[in-house]
Amino acid sequence: MRERKSLRPPVTSAAVVQNDDGQWLMAAKDYGNNRFSGLSEINTGNVRNLRLAWMFSTGVERGHEAAPLVVGDTMYYVTPYPNSLYALDLGKSGAKKWQYVPRTIRAAKGVACCDVVNRGAAYWDGKIIYNTLDAQTVAVDAATGQEVWRTQIGDINRGESVTMAPIVVKGKVLSGNSGGEFGVRGWLVSLDADNGHILWRAYSTGPDKDVLIGPRFHPFYRTDQGKDLGASSWPKEHWKVGGGSVWGWVSYDPELDLIYYGTGNPGPWDADLRPGDNKWTAGIFARDPDTGEAAWAYQWSPHDLYDYDGINENVLLELPINGQNRKVLVRPERNGYMYVMDRATGEVLSADPFVYTNTNLGFDYKTGKMIENKSKATGMGKTVSDICPAAPGGKDWQPTSWSPRTRLLYVPHNNLCMEYTGTEANYMAGTPYVGAVVKMYAGPGGNRGEFTAWDPVARKKVWSIKEKFPAWSGALATAGDVVFYGTMDRYFKAVDARSGEVLWQFRTGSGIIGQPISFKGPDGKQYIAIADGVGGWSGAVVAGGLDPRDSTGALGFVGAMGDLPADTTKGGVIYVFALP
Amino acid sequence: MRERKSLRPPVTSAAVVQNDDGQWLMAAKDYGNNRFSGLSEINTGNVRNLRLAWMFSTGVERGHEAAPLVVGDTMYYVTPYPNSLYALDLGKSGAKKWQYVPRTIRAAKGVACCDVVNRGAAYWDGKIIYNTLDAQTVAVDAATGQEVWRTQIGDINRGESVTMAPIVVKGKVLSGNSGGEFGVRGWLVSLDADNGHILWRAYSTGPDKDVLIGPRFHPFYRTDQGKDLGASSWPKEHWKVGGGSVWGWVSYDPELDLIYYGTGNPGPWDADLRPGDNKWTAGIFARDPDTGEAAWAYQWSPHDLYDYDGINENVLLELPINGQNRKVLVRPERNGYMYVMDRATGEVLSADPFVYTNTNLGFDYKTGKMIENKSKATGMGKTVSDICPAAPGGKDWQPTSWSPRTRLLYVPHNNLCMEYTGTEANYMAGTPYVGAVVKMYAGPGGNRGEFTAWDPVARKKVWSIKEKFPAWSGALATAGDVVFYGTMDRYFKAVDARSGEVLWQFRTGSGIIGQPISFKGPDGKQYIAIADGVGGWSGAVVAGGLDPRDSTGALGFVGAMGDLPADTTKGGVIYVFALP
Repeated sequence: MRERKSLRPPVTSAAVVQNDDGQWLMAAKDYGNNRFSGLSEINTGNVRNLRLAWMFSTGVERGHEAAPLVVGDTMYYVTPYPNSLYALDLGKSGAKKWQYVPRTIRAAKGVACCDVVNRGAAYWDGKIIYNTLDAQTVAVDAATGQEVWRTQIGDINRGESVTMAPIVVKGKVLSGNSGGEFGVRGWLVSLDADNGHILWRAYSTGPDKDVLIGPRFHPFYRTDQGKDLGASSWPKEHWKVGGGSVWGWVSYDPELDLIYYGTGNPGPWDADLRPGDNKWTAGIFARDPDTGEAAWAYQWSPHDLYDYDGINENVLLELPINGQNRKVLVRPERNGYMYVMDRATGEVLSADPFVYTNTNLGFDYKTGKMIENKSKATGMGKTVSDICPAAPGGKDWQPTSWSPRTRLLYVPHNNLCMEYTGTEANYMAGTPYVGAVVKMYAGPGGNRGEFTAWDPVARKKVWSIKEKFPAWSGALATAGDVVFYGTMDRYFKAVDARSGEVLWQFRTGSGIIGQPISFKGPDGKQYIAIADGVGGWSGAVVAGGLDPRDSTGALGFVGAMGDLPADTTKGGVIYVFALP
Repeated sequence: MRERKSLRPPVTSAAVVQNDDGQWLMAAKDYGNNRFSGLSEINTGNVRNLRLAWMFSTGVERGHEAAPLVVGDTMYYVTPYPNSLYALDLGKSGAKKWQYVPRTIRAAKGVACCDVVNRGAAYWDGKIIYNTLDAQTVAVDAATGQEVWRTQIGDINRGESVTMAPIVVKGKVLSGNSGGEFGVRGWLVSLDADNGHILWRAYSTGPDKDVLIGPRFHPFYRTDQGKDLGASSWPKEHWKVGGGSVWGWVSYDPELDLIYYGTGNPGPWDADLRPGDNKWTAGIFARDPDTGEAAWAYQWSPHDLYDYDGINENVLLELPINGQNRKVLVRPERNGYMYVMDRATGEVLSADPFVYTNTNLGFDYKTGKMIENKSKATGMGKTVSDICPAAPGGKDWQPTSWSPRTRLLYVPHNNLCMEYTGTEANYMAGTPYVGAVVKMYAGPGGNRGEFTAWDPVARKKVWSIKEKFPAWSGALATAGDVVFYGTMDRYFKAVDARSGEVLWQFRTGSGIIGQPISFKGPDGKQYIAIADGVGGWSGAVVAGGLDPRDSTGALGFVGAMGDLPADTTKGGVIYVFALP
């Protein structure tokens, strides 16, 4: 293991970041958001013998969505607010090396819509870089725990918080804001990884100059072509408080030299208050990582009616489409459709429902838009029942994993429907701006979650496992053909990647909504790590101690989760497993 | 396992409570405080294979001192304040059956000297019975989680809280008050287990009628003989606020039909403010469980100078003393001496230091008192250094375990010294009443804790394991000749009962100050359970988030524990281990 120390000096090339299976240097592991570990010591034949090697309690009992990082012989973990960073010694059963506690403003908790989660950090050039709930990006010396720099990137007084894991591309730290339920204006910001200086900021709404739309911008579909659509597709000035926040995942294709990321729901939820396409909310941008210039954009849900917050991950793959290898992005979208897009052009190659959905009737390949089911359209003062999927979508933030061996995408997801009433909403900076009363409940079949293996070439489900609660954790595929994920009712599961058979499961202390990772320990063995600590939007009833009788609590999610407290309490522990 | 359901109807005989190794019906397991499990499936040969079966997060991150109970197929656990009671299904990997949340007054946290701990419950006749921090005793239906009765037994406005595990003797629930640092007057109260009605209350101080001293009272030593000594050994009326709280362990001998329990330190700590013997603080009572009448009493530390709070457990054994089998109680006392007493008479048969001690120079068998080292005497305005043991004593509340196979007592304990300055103190109901500034630090050798196997017949240590921090967890001895305990730096250890060799250890999420137990699962296998969750007096720097730079924090314990946060965070998880 000594040679692992040679990691520093700088890991600045994308190739190193992508191809090291011993470490885990960014939340999604690789720029393509594949989350695949090439380690195969743990496999379908022996995973039944998996056992706990050590644990570490984070001392924070809110939703733990973060992926641990592993750099050399050290594990790093960012807690939910107050966003401590721990460095744990892998050679000493997770002994604490140091803890960094950022200076933050507690009032940030008041502008977090859905628990005070954090989704993890990124390693770059000797530094652990992550975001705090009160909208700072901090860089900490990976060896010493000393703060190297910190930069205020947003303003809680405007309702902005930051929960996403940054990624670092060519020395640029990319992060966006949360706050789609607080009337924020969404953006992605780029900082210099060396010193935290702001390099550019690309807004999701407003005139082209703010959205960094210029001569390089070539959207594929006609409806996305035109000048200043980010302003003109809104009622006057509404784009200033119109959402399109950026709190999910950023992918990067080093060959095309483009980043990809989704934009959040328009605000407020009540769509009658914002006639128009509401560009560029509930969509996706391809941008130049150096300048932020947009290459193309696309909206999954123009004039979104359902909070179909478009921030999910874009999985970068090369797939044979109609007999031809295409550079695609695969996108399990909130609206319940699995998109396969040409990532150079933004063309939708296929879009198929992966959950039960009745808000759209199918995809129109000519217009590039969904065919809306008008009988499910929401509106002011109207109550619409049985909207499927519900606001958290067919899949929310919980990231998928791709195995190049099985050529399947492993999708942790939801099966929820909702009743929706549009209401009035008035903007006041830093306060909730929603305009909807929502009650969610289980979709057809009664299972509120599911873990699905999807073949994006055959465009169909191969197998799936039904879960009582939304499958709100990330997925991890490995070269041992074992796929890992966790459940809100306290199981960490190892599944046969080909058959979907559950090979092993472990009952954890609290429910799981974190991101599993794999790495090689100082002893050369393969390890699997996951944090428990139920919470997030889906688990707010537990993490926030909400009254289970208020079915409209947590923007309606409590309605579907009133029985969660019967299965799990709060928690916050990192589990590290290995073979004996 | 089906026959285990036959537990109910009533388990009301002492024999059943004492002799069932499949279950764990009271915190100490048995009336003699032996904490020995007759199960031997897990033994010195195979304990290395021990692995986690399941876990459960309590959702509370304060010090977890409670022992789990096991009744039939259910595990019960009382959390630190707010003192929830969980019922977990042993047949379903700890699935939550129900949770009972008592109605409590949060202000109780303000009168808890040293974290908001609870030490566990007792099972009796279909009910789980325990105490809440705000001084209630509650009885909950073990099957349904419905409250059967609750009784206010103390008053937080007078500084009274309750942290101890009750025991139930002949249908009487016995509990006492905490608050020795708040000027309380100590008592033990007896409630009817059927309905919670108060049957009797025995004060530790005051006139004989309050102390329930009458014709049956026959103390062994002359200094304890006389009328109304609980009042006359104090400055006028001071006994009303003089401490002698009862927050440790109660033992019961069914043959002699006597209960035994210790009394806490006199208040305030500054001894110059309370001339006299301060009876019956820092001592022990033997009482009739039906009436509360005292049979005998004894003071370990008359006119206590060091906060030698005398509440430790009394381990009831039959030992050959000078060639004769004697019914004794073995008592590892706060002052650092291991006492062996005739439990029928209160005679001290032997008293030997089990830690480094310089406050006393030895035991005078004629007077029945320690020979005080006057050079270490504390007093008003005086600063005395290198007092050993420090205020938490050679051993604090952390309960020992006895193995009838090895005939050794396993003692988790401290190795701490202190600097002590007596100060003025004024009584105001419900506020701290201490009168001392204390700074603690490691005793000789630098290890702050130790786990010692002690032979009470040979009157000597057989082996010991040094620990970085005070060994603040309970001990568990088993018929497999394996002894279990946990450490504040996150290790749960299995030790060879004869040699002291550490056979297995597991790194938990948070530090351990709980009580390990063993039981037989519904599958017939032997299980070991322990909770983590660092805290208590020793871990207050972490559990209470105290500033490690204030060495006088937590009554001086912070001075000795400034580095604890480097090793552990807060936590609160139940771990259940078994062989594969």
